[in-house]
Amino acid sequence: MDSRKIGILGGGQLGRMLVEAAHRLNIKTVILDADNSPAKQINALHPHITGSFASADHIRELAKECDIITYEIEHIDTKVLEEIDGQVELQPSWRTVRVIQDKFLQKSHISEAGVPVAESISVEQNTPESLQKIGAKFGYPFMLKSRTLAYDGRGNFVVSNAEKIPEALEALKNRPLYAERWAPFVKELAVMVVRTKDGKCVSYPTVETVHENNICKLVYAPARVPDGVRERARAMAEKAVASFWGAGVFGVEMFLLSDGQCSLLLNELAPRPHNSGHYTIEACATSQYEAHLRAITDLPLLPASTLLSTPSTSAIMLNLLGPSYTDIAKKALATPGATVHLYGKHEAKPGRKMGHLTVVAGSMSEAEYRVAPLVALADADKTAASPVAPLNTTTPDHPLIAVIMGSDSDLPVMKPAAQILKSFDVPFELTIVSAHRTPHRLVRYAEEAQARGFKAIIAGAGGAAHLPGMTAAHCTIPVIGVPVKGSVLDGVDSLHSIVQMPRGIPVATVAINNSTNAALLALRVLAAEDSELGHEVRRKLEKYTDDMEKEVQGKIERLETGGWEDYVVKK
Amino acid sequence: MDSRKIGILGGGQLGRMLVEAAHRLNIKTVILDADNSPAKQINALHPHITGSFASADHIRELAKECDIITYEIEHIDTKVLEEIDGQVELQPSWRTVRVIQDKFLQKSHISEAGVPVAESISVEQNTPESLQKIGAKFGYPFMLKSRTLAYDGRGNFVVSNAEKIPEALEALKNRPLYAERWAPFVKELAVMVVRTKDGKCVSYPTVETVHENNICKLVYAPARVPDGVRERARAMAEKAVASFWGAGVFGVEMFLLSDGQCSLLLNELAPRPHNSGHYTIEACATSQYEAHLRAITDLPLLPASTLLSTPSTSAIMLNLLGPSYTDIAKKALATPGATVHLYGKHEAKPGRKMGHLTVVAGSMSEAEYRVAPLVALADADKTAASPVAPLNTTTPDHPLIAVIMGSDSDLPVMKPAAQILKSFDVPFELTIVSAHRTPHRLVRYAEEAQARGFKAIIAGAGGAAHLPGMTAAHCTIPVIGVPVKGSVLDGVDSLHSIVQMPRGIPVATVAINNSTNAALLALRVLAAEDSELGHEVRRKLEKYTDDMEKEVQGKIERLETGGWEDYVVKK
Repeated sequence: MDSRKIGILGGGQLGRMLVEAAHRLNIKTVILDADNSPAKQINALHPHITGSFASADHIRELAKECDIITYEIEHIDTKVLEEIDGQVELQPSWRTVRVIQDKFLQKSHISEAGVPVAESISVEQNTPESLQKIGAKFGYPFMLKSRTLAYDGRGNFVVSNAEKIPEALEALKNRPLYAERWAPFVKELAVMVVRTKDGKCVSYPTVETVHENNICKLVYAPARVPDGVRERARAMAEKAVASFWGAGVFGVEMFLLSDGQCSLLLNELAPRPHNSGHYTIEACATSQYEAHLRAITDLPLLPASTLLSTPSTSAIMLNLLGPSYTDIAKKALATPGATVHLYGKHEAKPGRKMGHLTVVAGSMSEAEYRVAPLVALADADKTAASPVAPLNTTTPDHPLIAVIMGSDSDLPVMKPAAQILKSFDVPFELTIVSAHRTPHRLVRYAEEAQARGFKAIIAGAGGAAHLPGMTAAHCTIPVIGVPVKGSVLDGVDSLHSIVQMPRGIPVATVAINNSTNAALLALRVLAAEDSELGHEVRRKLEKYTDDMEKEVQGKIERLETGGWEDYVVKK
Repeated sequence: MDSRKIGILGGGQLGRMLVEAAHRLNIKTVILDADNSPAKQINALHPHITGSFASADHIRELAKECDIITYEIEHIDTKVLEEIDGQVELQPSWRTVRVIQDKFLQKSHISEAGVPVAESISVEQNTPESLQKIGAKFGYPFMLKSRTLAYDGRGNFVVSNAEKIPEALEALKNRPLYAERWAPFVKELAVMVVRTKDGKCVSYPTVETVHENNICKLVYAPARVPDGVRERARAMAEKAVASFWGAGVFGVEMFLLSDGQCSLLLNELAPRPHNSGHYTIEACATSQYEAHLRAITDLPLLPASTLLSTPSTSAIMLNLLGPSYTDIAKKALATPGATVHLYGKHEAKPGRKMGHLTVVAGSMSEAEYRVAPLVALADADKTAASPVAPLNTTTPDHPLIAVIMGSDSDLPVMKPAAQILKSFDVPFELTIVSAHRTPHRLVRYAEEAQARGFKAIIAGAGGAAHLPGMTAAHCTIPVIGVPVKGSVLDGVDSLHSIVQMPRGIPVATVAINNSTNAALLALRVLAAEDSELGHEVRRKLEKYTDDMEKEVQGKIERLETGGWEDYVVKK
């Protein structure tokens, strides 16, 4: 595919998954790391370099063996990278690595590129006085961080009040430091961005990461946040990555702030494949590893390559940490939709990343349901990481059915629809849209319905009853009309207004005042879909029908045993 | 995951993909094959055995190095396997390999297990006389085959008439032969079956294979044949595999006969991963390679593991043969949903399997559309394999919409629905079902509608008009009712009969005689689905609406420019 040899600085799990992807494309790789490192185990094509990615001599040695050098870690001596640049191709550029590996430089660079980050200040001297000044400026708590060699939370200290300053200085002594204003967040988000050599960026979906003891534990793809937030996160990540140099994938981590406006702050960025992108192996058309290789070797990559396999694909990644990893992995083999990746590491020390698993399903709730026993098993292992934070499994469901009515006076008629949808656990929205009194709202509502993910719209109206027909005229979603009986004409006016639509604009009309059937019809539309949700709704509809039959059977028995003379019709 | 070492006889592409799967589970493998073979390239964990899977000494050497031995090829000396049995575990059993590697023994064994195969006869002496006797018995053409060491069509000869007998004997001289009655088939099908140690069988979906010059070229998953045929093929494959010994995956190839009854004949069976199962890497929850490893090491495997990732997942595998393989692979990188697997082989001889690609999509027609340019490129390379057979891309679409009516007299009213569905290229079925005159047919039709894959039912009826409501009572699919205007009452009788359904059984009613809208409503139901088909229908619906708007715009212009006095209303 590409005859050039790729040198990889670092042979851990990221390097291993890069090598796996390289094999599939006949791309040759050479690893620099200790012997028997995870990436070396799966590559017998070439002799590797034994040593450390931190050693200049070893990097020079690797450079002689290959045409392109890339990284699975950013803590590299960039002076030697600068020196060998030209002799080999470096992707991404050493300048990118140099800026990113110093977190204060990274933050300043990203901020200058116009991307919001937490306010940061360099600590000129590691003294109590200088930190007290920062405390006065930022307030407490604030973050004290090592500028370099910080990862998985090592090198960070939360200065909760002035009294903690000596402890913070002791914990991070002899390190170059900077301070960050506290960012109160509700969730952490991440986006993998692929930067091609010409500086174009393509990004994977926004995911949600859950950390425990500063180590990534779970990744939800896509993130359980509104569409708009996901799109803003992608745009922010792409903007940040576009400001760097060279090709490859970048992991971009962000905070979703608790400011009531869903504001985003970029937290940090890695110039390489990232833990938050493991899920792409199973859930996306092309994995982050293959995307990285394609970007650095100039092989084709489509925007479609970074999409989830189908619009409804949902995935959850669980890191397998510490000694319990084989137990969880075995349980995963007996879990529908789960795939296991072990890294060939020997010592399963507490907290060490020994592997991961990804659960893929047709909806996030299904994925959550499947992964829950595996997370419980991970949580039961106190040695993996402790203390254990509770798993947040609430999914902000977006409504699938809209129930609208022309007037609040229609609510008593429309309520049974809402009750049916509620009893089926199908998320819906109930609101007032009047064709005659809020005509602009009607147009906007109907036109946005598709993008908002509605599968059907139930519209109730009385009298001239234009709402269902006008809604149908402004969208291509199935519209179900409920004729509401008014004070005159027994509802036949509404019925005819709703049902007698001209050719081209259909409205599914149900009986007068029968919003129950409108809801059941909407559920049949959902059940027609070949998806987990569709199958679930179908099962519930079948149960509903069975229950209805049983109810009538009960009445038959009551009538036959008690006799028709004494039978009382219940309302 | 399992600390035992797996020895693999053979290190070609099947071995390579087994090793890839083993790495992900931390399962150690040792390969016996020539140095630098595809499987060895990706495994640096252990020293391998250099040599041939055909050598008894090399097999003995491998046995010393591992705990379990398995195979990527069945042409192995089974005497030495019998000898080492017990010293190491053999999966599947050497007895299985011994029976399968002799195709005549294999056929007899399968036939005795009660699975239909083409009638076969052993050729006792390789003489013209004995073949003439067979010709007299079987008629011409018949197949002359080598009992052993036959693969990719090598070792087969079609004896088209008695004059060809000397040529056939010359082509297959010095080989042990048998003859097979000619099986006229319309398609070749294949099923991967996983046999666990306790003899239980789980199977992957039935696929369709297309061979060219006796080499597998394309695999369609699932096979483009009716559901019933797919299920019969799976049952037949499982029955055949159940009759063997030991654990692992088996590739089972079958003929779908041109006898008008969709009869199936088992063609042949392989005790190992198979070319027709490559697609499982991308399209199924668990690949055939991982399933093989799990079966032979007694790790958990669910029936769900062998399912396609989603009910609508469709995949096409294209083998990359000969010198053009990198060009096709590069084009595949720019094809949505395509994944490339190259095997690390050096000499790209014509017809040699250098890699494969799998295109995954949400429907078979989408997968066909995506793979077509890649197949065209493969066909353009005459050196890969020639002569080139035309690609069969006809998909037997099953109907998605049912259009039913109470009487043939309703046809003029229902025809516009059919015309709309036809113009949208949506497969549908139009037939007569009468609630009053064919009540049993109605029940059966409605109850089977779900299993037949209908997404909506359009039912037209006049007068007492019970058809839509009764259909809705017998299924949970959306039913759309079209009130047909009769000779009296202007259709209000039909309208009220259809629309005034009791709570619990909804019918989506459209205007009197307006079957156009019924079809458009059914299309909106299809468009609500998050699938390629759904998106396609939605695009077409949007175009339909745009066209309608433009048509009215045209009338507005005509009216405004020509004036209302001269305006003629067109019917």
